[in-house]
Amino acid sequence: MIKTDILIIGAGPTGLFTVFEAGLLKLKCHLIDALPQPGGQCSEIYPKKPIYDIPAFPEILAGHLVDNLMEQIKPFEAGFTLGERAETLDKQEDGSFIITTNKGTKHHAPVVVIAGGLGSFEPRKPLIPNIVNFEDKGVNYFIKDPEVYRNKKVVIAGGGDSALDWAIFLADVASEVSLVHRRNEFRGALDSVEKAAELAKLGKIQLYTEAEVVAISGEEKLNAVTIKHNDQEKGETILEVDNFIPLFGLSPKLGPIGDWGLEIEKNAIKVNNAKDYQTNIPGVFAIGDVNTYEGKLKLILSGFHEAAVMCQFAYQIINPGKRYVMKYTTVGGVEGFDGSKKEAKKEVVQSILA
Amino acid sequence: MIKTDILIIGAGPTGLFTVFEAGLLKLKCHLIDALPQPGGQCSEIYPKKPIYDIPAFPEILAGHLVDNLMEQIKPFEAGFTLGERAETLDKQEDGSFIITTNKGTKHHAPVVVIAGGLGSFEPRKPLIPNIVNFEDKGVNYFIKDPEVYRNKKVVIAGGGDSALDWAIFLADVASEVSLVHRRNEFRGALDSVEKAAELAKLGKIQLYTEAEVVAISGEEKLNAVTIKHNDQEKGETILEVDNFIPLFGLSPKLGPIGDWGLEIEKNAIKVNNAKDYQTNIPGVFAIGDVNTYEGKLKLILSGFHEAAVMCQFAYQIINPGKRYVMKYTTVGGVEGFDGSKKEAKKEVVQSILA
Repeated sequence: MIKTDILIIGAGPTGLFTVFEAGLLKLKCHLIDALPQPGGQCSEIYPKKPIYDIPAFPEILAGHLVDNLMEQIKPFEAGFTLGERAETLDKQEDGSFIITTNKGTKHHAPVVVIAGGLGSFEPRKPLIPNIVNFEDKGVNYFIKDPEVYRNKKVVIAGGGDSALDWAIFLADVASEVSLVHRRNEFRGALDSVEKAAELAKLGKIQLYTEAEVVAISGEEKLNAVTIKHNDQEKGETILEVDNFIPLFGLSPKLGPIGDWGLEIEKNAIKVNNAKDYQTNIPGVFAIGDVNTYEGKLKLILSGFHEAAVMCQFAYQIINPGKRYVMKYTTVGGVEGFDGSKKEAKKEVVQSILA
Repeated sequence: MIKTDILIIGAGPTGLFTVFEAGLLKLKCHLIDALPQPGGQCSEIYPKKPIYDIPAFPEILAGHLVDNLMEQIKPFEAGFTLGERAETLDKQEDGSFIITTNKGTKHHAPVVVIAGGLGSFEPRKPLIPNIVNFEDKGVNYFIKDPEVYRNKKVVIAGGGDSALDWAIFLADVASEVSLVHRRNEFRGALDSVEKAAELAKLGKIQLYTEAEVVAISGEEKLNAVTIKHNDQEKGETILEVDNFIPLFGLSPKLGPIGDWGLEIEKNAIKVNNAKDYQTNIPGVFAIGDVNTYEGKLKLILSGFHEAAVMCQFAYQIINPGKRYVMKYTTVGGVEGFDGSKKEAKKEVVQSILA
C-alpha cells in the first residue's frame, strides 16, 4: 500500500504544480496517471506545440512546460504510479481514501485531488452497430505495429493527418490500401494530401471520397466493408478486406472517475469555486480542466491557481486545528524534502523587509 | 481624454497580464500607475529578488518576470499613464467611467479593473503628535539627495537596512550622525551592522539603542529631538539637530481608491470570486493582491487566473449579447493589434485537431 498526504489523479501540468504548492506546506504527494510519462496531454499529444498563454512565457513548447514543472517540483520528491488508471475510490471509516488502479496497485491518503484534465482519450468510433463484434478481429482504432498489415487488404477511414499518414505508410506494406473520407477535402498537412493524391494516381491507394463505410461483415473475423457513396448514382461498393481502421481522432472520456459518486455536469466535476475547489465528496478536490463552475476557463493557468488554493484547504484537513501562516517564497525560500533549500541572498530579503 | 476598452489601475504583473488576456478577446487596454515604470513592486522594490512560485519557473528574478510580461503583451499595444495616481472615479450616465489622475489626466472606458496590488507604499511614521508640522521642515521620510545633509546634524531612527545604510553613508557627509533604535539588535545585513558598529567606535556615528525619539521641537523648522532611554536611570537625552529622518519602512495604503464607494474589508476590495471578480460597483473589477474573498491567496499566479476570468466578463459588458467562443492560443494563435501573428506550424496544429 502506497501512503501519502495527497493523492493526485492526473500528472498533467495542474497535477504536477500541485506537488509544488503542497510541498511548500510540507505535504507529500503521489501521482497516478494512465499515461506512461508525466505531463498529460502536453507530453502525449503535443510536446512540440508552442503555447502562448502561459503567464510570463511569450512562447513555450508544451514539452518544455512539463520539463520546467518537473524541475520545479523535484525538491518535493513526489511518488508516481504511471501507466495505471485509477479505477476505484473507497472512503475509509476515518475519512481517508484508498484508490486502486486497474493493475491492482493500492494508494492510501487523507486527501484526493482529481487533476485528470479532459479525462482519458478514447477513439471516436463510426456509427456501425455491429462494429464492437469485430474489434481486434479486423477492426482497429490505433495502429500499434504496422507489420500486422503486411500483405493485407486494408480500409482506412478518416480525413485528418492520421488517416492520410497511415494510408501513405501502409501503401508500401499492405497488399491493398483504400482510403475512405466523407468529403473531397482532407484536413491534413498539405504535403501529406499531395503525397496521398500522387499515390492514388499511381494506383497504390484506392481513394473513395464523398463516401462512408456504413456496414461491415464477416464470420469469425472481418472480411468485407460496404462503402456508400454520396452520389446516389454510384450507390454502394462492397470491398473484400482483412482490416478496417477508422481514424476519426480521439475523444476525451471521464472514465471510471465518472462512477465515483461525484456530481458531474457537462462531462466535468462540479466544484465549489467560491472556496476550495472541493467536490460533493468531502476530502476529494477537483482542479484544472476536469472541473466545472460558472465562468470556468479550461486554461492551464487556471489549474495553477486552483492547485494553490486547494492545497491550503487540504492542509486544514490533514492538520486539523493547526493554522498555517503563508510565507512568500521570496522571503522564506523553498525547502525541499530532499534537504535542498533555495532562498534569496540575505541582503536582498532584508532590503524588502526593512 | 484617453479612451480605451479596459482601464487598468496598476501596472504590476496582474495588470500587465490583463492586457494579454484582453488582447486575445480583441479588447484594448490602458494602464495607470503612480510609479514611473511598469512592474509594480517587482520593479520598484525587489527587481533583483528571485521568486520561486511562478508556475514553470523554478526560479525567476522579479525584474525578469516583468520583462517577460512586457514582451508577452507587446503585440496588444497597451497605453500607459505612468507616474500619475488614479484619483477619482466618475460613473457616467451610459454606465461608463471617467478616471482622473492627480495630474488631471482623464481616461474614459466602459470597464475599470483595479489591479493595484497592496496599494501605494507610504512611509511608516513614528507616533509623535506634532511630526506633521515639521514634514519637509527638517523631518524627511525618504532620502532623495544626500547632499541636502552636508554639514548638518542628523538623527536617523530605525533598525533595518535603510537606517543602517544611510547612517553609514551620511557619516561622511553630515557634521553629526545619530542613530536611534528601540532594540540592541539591528535587522540588517551583517556587514552593515559591523560597519555601523565600527563607525560608532570611531565616534563618527552616535549610537542610541534601546531608545526612542519621543518628541521633536523647533520654531520655523526643526531644531531638537528628545530621545527617551528604556533604562530609566538614563532618562532622556535632548539633541540639537537640523534633520530627523525616521526610516521605519514602507506600509501599503489603498489610497484614493478607498474613497470610491467600493466595499472594503481588511484594507482590500471585496469581489465576487464565485464568478467574475467584480466589485460592488458593476463594471468595476478588482484582481490580484488588491482584492479579497474567502481563501484568497496574495500570490502572483492567482492574479493571472483572476485576470483571465475577469476579461471574459468584461467582454460581455463591452459587447452585450455577443457570444465569445474561446479558442486555445495553441490552435488559434495570437493575433496582435500591431499586425503581428504568432501561431504554431500548420502540421502541429493539424495533428492535434485530427
